[in-house]
Amino acid sequence: MTIQDADARTPADGAAGPVIGSHKAYLTGSRPDLRVPVRRVHLTDGNSVTLYDTSGPYTDPGVVTDVRRGLPPLRRPWIEERRADGQAGLVTQLAYARRGEITPEMEFVALRENVAPAFVRDEIAAGRAVLPLNVNHPEAEPMIIGKNFLVKVNANIGNSAVTSSVEEEVEKMTWATRWGADTVMDLSTGRDIHTTREWVLRNSPVPVGTVPIYQALERVGGRAEELSWEVYRDTVIEQAEQGVDYMTVHAGVLLRYVPLTARRKTGIVSRGGSILAAWCLAHHQENFLYTHFAELCEILRAYDVTFSLGDGLRPGSIADANDEAQFAELRTLAELTRTAREHDVQTMIEGPGHVPMHKIKENIDLQQELCQEAPFYTLGPLTTDVAPGYDHITSGIGAAMIAWWGTAMLCYVTPKEHLGLPDRDDVKTGVITYKIAAHAADLAKGHPGAQVWDDALSDARFEFRWEDQFNLSLDPDTARAFHDETLPAPPAKTAHFCSMCGPKFCSMKISRAINEQFGGEAEATPEEVEAGMLAKSREFAESGGRLYLPLAD
Amino acid sequence: MTIQDADARTPADGAAGPVIGSHKAYLTGSRPDLRVPVRRVHLTDGNSVTLYDTSGPYTDPGVVTDVRRGLPPLRRPWIEERRADGQAGLVTQLAYARRGEITPEMEFVALRENVAPAFVRDEIAAGRAVLPLNVNHPEAEPMIIGKNFLVKVNANIGNSAVTSSVEEEVEKMTWATRWGADTVMDLSTGRDIHTTREWVLRNSPVPVGTVPIYQALERVGGRAEELSWEVYRDTVIEQAEQGVDYMTVHAGVLLRYVPLTARRKTGIVSRGGSILAAWCLAHHQENFLYTHFAELCEILRAYDVTFSLGDGLRPGSIADANDEAQFAELRTLAELTRTAREHDVQTMIEGPGHVPMHKIKENIDLQQELCQEAPFYTLGPLTTDVAPGYDHITSGIGAAMIAWWGTAMLCYVTPKEHLGLPDRDDVKTGVITYKIAAHAADLAKGHPGAQVWDDALSDARFEFRWEDQFNLSLDPDTARAFHDETLPAPPAKTAHFCSMCGPKFCSMKISRAINEQFGGEAEATPEEVEAGMLAKSREFAESGGRLYLPLAD
Repeated sequence: MTIQDADARTPADGAAGPVIGSHKAYLTGSRPDLRVPVRRVHLTDGNSVTLYDTSGPYTDPGVVTDVRRGLPPLRRPWIEERRADGQAGLVTQLAYARRGEITPEMEFVALRENVAPAFVRDEIAAGRAVLPLNVNHPEAEPMIIGKNFLVKVNANIGNSAVTSSVEEEVEKMTWATRWGADTVMDLSTGRDIHTTREWVLRNSPVPVGTVPIYQALERVGGRAEELSWEVYRDTVIEQAEQGVDYMTVHAGVLLRYVPLTARRKTGIVSRGGSILAAWCLAHHQENFLYTHFAELCEILRAYDVTFSLGDGLRPGSIADANDEAQFAELRTLAELTRTAREHDVQTMIEGPGHVPMHKIKENIDLQQELCQEAPFYTLGPLTTDVAPGYDHITSGIGAAMIAWWGTAMLCYVTPKEHLGLPDRDDVKTGVITYKIAAHAADLAKGHPGAQVWDDALSDARFEFRWEDQFNLSLDPDTARAFHDETLPAPPAKTAHFCSMCGPKFCSMKISRAINEQFGGEAEATPEEVEAGMLAKSREFAESGGRLYLPLAD
Repeated sequence: MTIQDADARTPADGAAGPVIGSHKAYLTGSRPDLRVPVRRVHLTDGNSVTLYDTSGPYTDPGVVTDVRRGLPPLRRPWIEERRADGQAGLVTQLAYARRGEITPEMEFVALRENVAPAFVRDEIAAGRAVLPLNVNHPEAEPMIIGKNFLVKVNANIGNSAVTSSVEEEVEKMTWATRWGADTVMDLSTGRDIHTTREWVLRNSPVPVGTVPIYQALERVGGRAEELSWEVYRDTVIEQAEQGVDYMTVHAGVLLRYVPLTARRKTGIVSRGGSILAAWCLAHHQENFLYTHFAELCEILRAYDVTFSLGDGLRPGSIADANDEAQFAELRTLAELTRTAREHDVQTMIEGPGHVPMHKIKENIDLQQELCQEAPFYTLGPLTTDVAPGYDHITSGIGAAMIAWWGTAMLCYVTPKEHLGLPDRDDVKTGVITYKIAAHAADLAKGHPGAQVWDDALSDARFEFRWEDQFNLSLDPDTARAFHDETLPAPPAKTAHFCSMCGPKFCSMKISRAINEQFGGEAEATPEEVEAGMLAKSREFAESGGRLYLPLAD
């Protein structure tokens, strides 16, 4: 394990180390051990902007991290206090919320989202939001997933039978959270599933999700027909013990739905969905995840693992979107959501997939109605099938739209989707693309505070504060590098023009002159403005026609 | 001029040369010189898919192109026949359409779009579509811009005072059209404006647009206040003579609107808009493009140059979207549209800019209502300001949405937006991103034939026809390269799995097994299906539990 070596920590290439131009800071809550990390950008005009920060201790120059020791277990005191308190059976955040209690975790996310702690509690109690944290994953910083909070982004990592290593996966996790992933899912299917997950969990500052059926299948030598509830249950317990925060469970893939997929263009594209469909067909029995769902709830409740009810029958092509197989499964997921809530288990619902734009809204509307507003967690959706190599973009379009309409968390798609396993750069591109989609949705939803960021960057742009513009960017390194490609000289960083228009044509300079002329008169009547303009026109003529220096130099 | 040398023609790197896996073909119309190019992909299953093709003769191995001689003037006979016909004053496609005539250009686009020629004529006659082709640009292949046709994409090229050369701009044009640009705009502002434009025009297979005010400003030494109608008029005539197909004209930037921008966060961000605002203020006179608009119509009509009425007051930040300055100008553009139509001049309207998702629809709805359904031509819009370096994505989201709702052409945005001048790779990324947005919109609008492409690619994906999947891609080179990164061996091209899941987990394989079992039974009753499933389950048990080879090997 060498990802923390000196080279890997250099800011330009490394997943760890401070983000240049940003400062790690903490907001403190009602107790000294409740410290919420933020990314603060100090601007050259003396102001500062505070941004949500998912990167964990890796970007704090005051913290020495060691991947072999793992991150500090910041939640341990809170969990232990609750255990000492001895409320029998009370483990999940949902159970506490329903009792009216505000946990430190709830207060943490309230500070993080700039809302009242009671609002966080009430949203969790209503099932409209989940706070996915296993009691055995004390290293993670609390976050919340719900449509009345900031839209979140998940990044998938994980090796496969063909490629990748443990070190690589830990590095991808660090890389993903550095650029803004709110959770990561470890989807490993190859060797060392347990070990990879252990390293990821102990070093992840964000909740970690898994799909336990993958490991269960490994346990039976890859023979789907040999799967059983007992094998699956033991796998879930193993993963829950390790600290997995949420688990994708394809309990809605019912035997009678499988034939509905036969005439599809792309059948079943979910790995978990197809494994369970194969099992159902092989035994001609109902999906054991469905028949044993109540027992599964008992296990998840004991650790506060959140359900992510998987959409095993999601469409894998534009042609298959919103079909009967997909919506039949969704109705079953709604039924399971009610069962999970009866057991105090937090629950979110996974969504598609491949959906053309005009069919996206029906997905979120139906899910919200059927599942009583449980958080929706969608993969894209991809809005066309024709662009392999660019599916971060085909899906980023759909993701932004469905998040605007109420999806709470977006599962990223990388440029390698359909073609191969993402490397570190693909992970970054996927995360940045999805942060754009999520933030665009936050703006469109009118989330309080979202536009502060855009405004600060636009102010910097208008005032030619290039360094501030870079530092406020979602990806400061890339913004700076692109600018430097054409105008690398240091003076260009304070120049009142850029390489696009050159010094003569800069519209921003002209606008600033207008602003200076009329900015103070915006409260004046049109007649007064008119009179002022005429006076200024004369002034201009008398001064020798050199008012618009931006155009004349 | 060396862009046509051997190196530049190699398929992997060059802008010219055939697209690997695609074949250039032509559809022939009612006369032998009416040949519509298409990109045809022959699939390994014996079928073929025919795609729209903007790349011109460069991708036809049977044509020798020479950038010093320019492309063959395919429209010259049609133009000369019309001249010989001697209909006084009849030049524009709008004039012919209004007379009920179907020109060869209209038939060309009808074949290209797979619609009836009379429909093309009627859409042009109603002003709902434009066919932007200057009589002095006979080299370009006819195309149409209107909401009832395929959504089009424009790519901006052009040097600035800071960087770039003539050769580079011609290469960018070839590169842009290779990847799907339907028009290019030459936005040069530096030296050699006339020469650059001449090379671009003579070698461009697509219509070329310009913003004449840039060259006019060069003529007066960069001093906006020294601009005049006469200087501008002479510039327009020079460009129309050369063959420019459409011109951005900021005639809606009225003197009284300028103060409306003073309190904006980012003032006026359009270069043309700011130049005219500066002129208006300097002289305290109305915009000369507005006061001389009828004369301008006469000039444009004589060449069949199409108006692209510029949105000089478009918002340059999320904060400024949909404000009074923007919509005041739009109302003036509606007035000018009526005037242009009275002169038989084809007209489209430019739109923003920076707009959050929830404010996008108002833009297209208002434009369509005010401008009597004249084609809308929008720049993005960018849905957030916080991601410089990724503005192809921030804007691709908005572009897909506004195109779904009726925008006819999208002006691309490259990753370098706000930071520098795009290079060849940026041009490609911008074009591909916008082709995705346009095609996603075609799908959402239910354009006949749009989904054929997605279906063909999804079929290839489901059937593990990797080469077909690559060849059908919007960017075959990138799809192939990404796949090869993980599985470079030739056998992997026919493998029934990929590197994402490896051989054991492939959901597509399982789905195919389901498909083979139940595909024929989709017409059966649920009871019959149920009975069939039970029988097959027994069969499975009797065969020794090896039905699902995909999972067992």
